[in-house]
Amino acid sequence: MQLLPGFRDFFPEDCARKNYILSCWREVARRYGFVEYDGPVVESLPLYEKKSGGELVGQMFTVGATAEPGVLKGALRPEMTPPLARMVAARARDFRKPLKWFSVPNCFRHERQGRGRLREFYQLNCDIIGELSPAADAELLAMVIDTLRSFGLGQEDFVVRVSDRNAWTQFASARGVSEERLLDFLAVIDKLERATPQETESKLQDFGISLEAVKAFLRDPAAEATGLKAISEDLTARGLNGYLELDLTIVRGLAYYTGFVFEIFDRKKKERALAGGGRYDKLLSLMSDGKVDLPALGFGMGDVVLANLIDDTASAKTKMAEWIAKNHSADVYAIIANEDCRPQALGIIQELRQAGYRVDYPLTAAKIGKQFQNAEHLGALVTVLFGEEWPQVKVKTLASRQELLIEHAKLAGTLRELLPGS
Amino acid sequence: MQLLPGFRDFFPEDCARKNYILSCWREVARRYGFVEYDGPVVESLPLYEKKSGGELVGQMFTVGATAEPGVLKGALRPEMTPPLARMVAARARDFRKPLKWFSVPNCFRHERQGRGRLREFYQLNCDIIGELSPAADAELLAMVIDTLRSFGLGQEDFVVRVSDRNAWTQFASARGVSEERLLDFLAVIDKLERATPQETESKLQDFGISLEAVKAFLRDPAAEATGLKAISEDLTARGLNGYLELDLTIVRGLAYYTGFVFEIFDRKKKERALAGGGRYDKLLSLMSDGKVDLPALGFGMGDVVLANLIDDTASAKTKMAEWIAKNHSADVYAIIANEDCRPQALGIIQELRQAGYRVDYPLTAAKIGKQFQNAEHLGALVTVLFGEEWPQVKVKTLASRQELLIEHAKLAGTLRELLPGS
Repeated sequence: MQLLPGFRDFFPEDCARKNYILSCWREVARRYGFVEYDGPVVESLPLYEKKSGGELVGQMFTVGATAEPGVLKGALRPEMTPPLARMVAARARDFRKPLKWFSVPNCFRHERQGRGRLREFYQLNCDIIGELSPAADAELLAMVIDTLRSFGLGQEDFVVRVSDRNAWTQFASARGVSEERLLDFLAVIDKLERATPQETESKLQDFGISLEAVKAFLRDPAAEATGLKAISEDLTARGLNGYLELDLTIVRGLAYYTGFVFEIFDRKKKERALAGGGRYDKLLSLMSDGKVDLPALGFGMGDVVLANLIDDTASAKTKMAEWIAKNHSADVYAIIANEDCRPQALGIIQELRQAGYRVDYPLTAAKIGKQFQNAEHLGALVTVLFGEEWPQVKVKTLASRQELLIEHAKLAGTLRELLPGS
Repeated sequence: MQLLPGFRDFFPEDCARKNYILSCWREVARRYGFVEYDGPVVESLPLYEKKSGGELVGQMFTVGATAEPGVLKGALRPEMTPPLARMVAARARDFRKPLKWFSVPNCFRHERQGRGRLREFYQLNCDIIGELSPAADAELLAMVIDTLRSFGLGQEDFVVRVSDRNAWTQFASARGVSEERLLDFLAVIDKLERATPQETESKLQDFGISLEAVKAFLRDPAAEATGLKAISEDLTARGLNGYLELDLTIVRGLAYYTGFVFEIFDRKKKERALAGGGRYDKLLSLMSDGKVDLPALGFGMGDVVLANLIDDTASAKTKMAEWIAKNHSADVYAIIANEDCRPQALGIIQELRQAGYRVDYPLTAAKIGKQFQNAEHLGALVTVLFGEEWPQVKVKTLASRQELLIEHAKLAGTLRELLPGS
């Protein structure tokens, strides 16, 4: 009856952290004019086999049914881009272009666990569909930067490494690499930082390319990576260009990327990538057999690495704790000092909840001291005591210890003054 | 590349509806002092095989992995009570009792589709753990009633049918039914309304009980169902008793229920149950091999039937539409009338978003008329026009068509006045 490896329980304190992350994600996405969509957790397996490519295909969870053992029903979504492309291809005409869509799905990958890597994780996905201009690339980058900033993370905490697959495509085809072998060549570049020079050199030999040529190109790529200039100018106008760093070693593992790509890392290099994405201008056409041909770009940002970085960054950690305290405390705790008053107390609790206050109370008779302890434990701002003073009630502000004795009919008005923000 | 049967895409308009339902669920749960938890989508199969019982076992989705074909990894959660019991049993000492916990998971059942029945659905789960008193039953019932009321549904729209499994346990054991056969007997009562009298009569014969005796008990159960009296008094104090109806035909299909049970139906009887739940006082002990012995009760409310009822109830439908319009519109649309102003516009858009406004703008040059159309389409409240007046900007309130020409530095202050609620 244990939790399965790589999966998480969200006890209330964990769930509050998850809600904080999802809430910031949604908040910034909406500020940027993105609208939310979602898909099913289970999709057809071929959707991913054909579209995701790369390592993901071997990391998929498959789904069957106890009633039909041996019959494959589908796969748990390992990423959101193929379902998004499927959805948009199906109803492209119904929406004004460009689409700015986001989602916060849980995704599933059958990987070995490690720091920042679980088998079920949440992922912010933002995509702009139907716009070829680098202005869209810049809007997406600004959005991902502001998302991280909303957690209290800044230029000293993370860096956005931008690159362009087209630069490598041109580099490779100029050196005689065929289109079919292009993805294999990009895979060598993708592994550049993790492999030894000897390994890379021997792999590059297959393409007739020297490690020297690759290194020279990495040092001076400017001429080929022209799309990145417009992006950089746009972000300069927003005051965000300081977050960018040109780094052509970034090519991304997945098959569908076509141009501009990026990954975001923590400055201390302690974590895996915080986010990654880029252009996939051909995917919609591929998904719809050419019926819908829209350029597109997007990124994904996982919750696990992000939570690690928040925990490691004092300002971000404080910001999270403040949000959680504010959003998870009770407004009012009803102290039932005299059980004869319980029916009256229940009536008033009902009215206060109806008015939108968060109200708790003891379900059974309890000592007054213990009731006040409960109120403190729940972070209540105010207690309302029902006892021998009835039909008057004692209202106590817990922070100031200030007490008022008022007619119960005046309670709602008094609370409006004491709890203006609630 | 199609959607699998029984699963849903959430295009933006569908996702807004889903968000509305989940938002109301969370809002009311917090007003009642419930705290949110969550678990993984994939759990071990035995967790459900041993605990859920009933039809669920044959309706489960199983999970494997492409990397290890044939190896069973787990099951998609068909319901939330067994994972909740697992979690609480593991850390019971860490929390003050009673626990009031809620969750809004997606759950999965491999059933045939029908009205109100899908293979993936969202479900509000609320549970109170560690309290034996009927005061907990009443708090839970008040909570589920107020949840439905928060959608604009009232006493004319739904009814809570309450019952007590103990009443049937006593009825059956007084007539010689052994404890092992009790669940089978309850299954006959569960099917009472759907089966023909002949079918029921023949099944009851196995237990040596006549249909007449069952019917007589249904007409006059009061003596045995004593727990329900205290619940009814509590709800009367809250003004909510009018929602309850005693109906002993309700016994719930799952194995773990022990006492008070209930189901909620629409008054027109067009839909399946809106919600159902009850006491499961023995489950925690069972899950922990006797180590944690806490009484508990809870309910689940699915989104599919609820959404049907909202769509069929004019007041509820209007309330949902208003929430969606308020939560999904843009605050500001930036009109870029002169492309030379784009960098300045981008800088100001950045500031406004930073200040929390929802701001959108054209990614590429577009005719002014089309830009205003886009602003209307996005439900923007205000447009800010960047053109030949720069460094002044034209601010237009779309509802009143009122225009102001102001220094761009004064924009934030002007918007604070025009958009007080944002």
